[in-house]
Amino acid sequence: MESGKSSKIAGLITTVSQLVLKDKRAIDLGKDQGDKIENCSMSKTMTRYVIRRGQIDDCSQISVLMRELAESEDYGDRVEVSEDDLRRDGFGDNPVFESIVLEDREADEESSILGYALFFMGFCSWKGRLLYLEDVYIDSEYRGTGLGIALLHTIAKISEERGCKAIQGTVVEWNTDVMKLYKRIGATDMTENDKYHLFAIGGTDVSRFAKARIPALNNGSQIVTCEL
Amino acid sequence: MESGKSSKIAGLITTVSQLVLKDKRAIDLGKDQGDKIENCSMSKTMTRYVIRRGQIDDCSQISVLMRELAESEDYGDRVEVSEDDLRRDGFGDNPVFESIVLEDREADEESSILGYALFFMGFCSWKGRLLYLEDVYIDSEYRGTGLGIALLHTIAKISEERGCKAIQGTVVEWNTDVMKLYKRIGATDMTENDKYHLFAIGGTDVSRFAKARIPALNNGSQIVTCEL
Repeated sequence: MESGKSSKIAGLITTVSQLVLKDKRAIDLGKDQGDKIENCSMSKTMTRYVIRRGQIDDCSQISVLMRELAESEDYGDRVEVSEDDLRRDGFGDNPVFESIVLEDREADEESSILGYALFFMGFCSWKGRLLYLEDVYIDSEYRGTGLGIALLHTIAKISEERGCKAIQGTVVEWNTDVMKLYKRIGATDMTENDKYHLFAIGGTDVSRFAKARIPALNNGSQIVTCEL
Repeated sequence: MESGKSSKIAGLITTVSQLVLKDKRAIDLGKDQGDKIENCSMSKTMTRYVIRRGQIDDCSQISVLMRELAESEDYGDRVEVSEDDLRRDGFGDNPVFESIVLEDREADEESSILGYALFFMGFCSWKGRLLYLEDVYIDSEYRGTGLGIALLHTIAKISEERGCKAIQGTVVEWNTDVMKLYKRIGATDMTENDKYHLFAIGGTDVSRFAKARIPALNNGSQIVTCEL
């Protein structure tokens, strides 16, 4: 998604540490506009957890967490997404999602990602620009530490910075933890309140329909589709 | 969304007329790879309805139809999207949606758009790349003619051409026409079948959260957010 890749989120150099701990070192870390992930690694001695943009090299660890999330929802057998899909669809020529990751700088490299959020920009024809939050996930061992809230807080800042009118996301009914988390920050359940249903048409059904002969127009007129 | 803007949908030069009517003129119209909307206008004498990519000049008419759609759902008072929002978010520097429109070449210019579909690309962490269908709308006078199916057929071709794993969309429970249309092409109601709920967190709540002090980490560690 070009919008995501290219937009500099100027306001996002304020740090969570700044808000929480009023830590002077954390403020210094963030205030330089040229600040990059590399610079963040310089803070290793003072900061254990870092929230940063997902990189292509994170796909392997994100993929593991993604499967954990699906398994925790008892849908592990439905996961069709591979590491390569993540690389292509999140970091290739035409990315369709963006990500942030939570890294533990004290862990070894292979298990350093403790959580991630996956999102993309969309549009609601009533409200306007939306941020679609597909996943927010924290490794089960680290729940209740505040790290999940910190990830969601970063997502809120991104949404705010890009002028999104709302954040939207789906939650399985029994996932009461996430529902509570969303409700704590003011979320509305559109399924409950406005009777919204989410529909999915699988790729094979889409293919069949795309290849099908569609009925002739009732009024006998002709219709043509331009190259799009 | 760069992916949408730049990708040429090579297969999409086949026409609906070709599928339905085996009309030689329609086939000729579409077979040139260099075919453009301008060329389509040459078919005025033979083709009444044209499905083409939405243009910035269509925003005024799309906006009218969008309001009609919301009013038909009894949500007219909730529409906050202006023509300018459509221009900026669909056709500006960082477009977040794409559109196709159905044009009546026999109508005058101000009322030539009879229907539209609005969509964007997204990602499901189980399935992969998705096409999100926000709206499919046909002016009420033209319902039941097959024009709505033709719009949806074009969306299916786009989804197929881009390798999307599924089309997803939301429908209000009482909008049985759209539910039937989706189910006819094989849609699953994820709210009914898998107990999925759609959540929305409004922009003002997001702002409040983004500006809030978040709780300190339970384990006393520090966390920092890099520039994203």
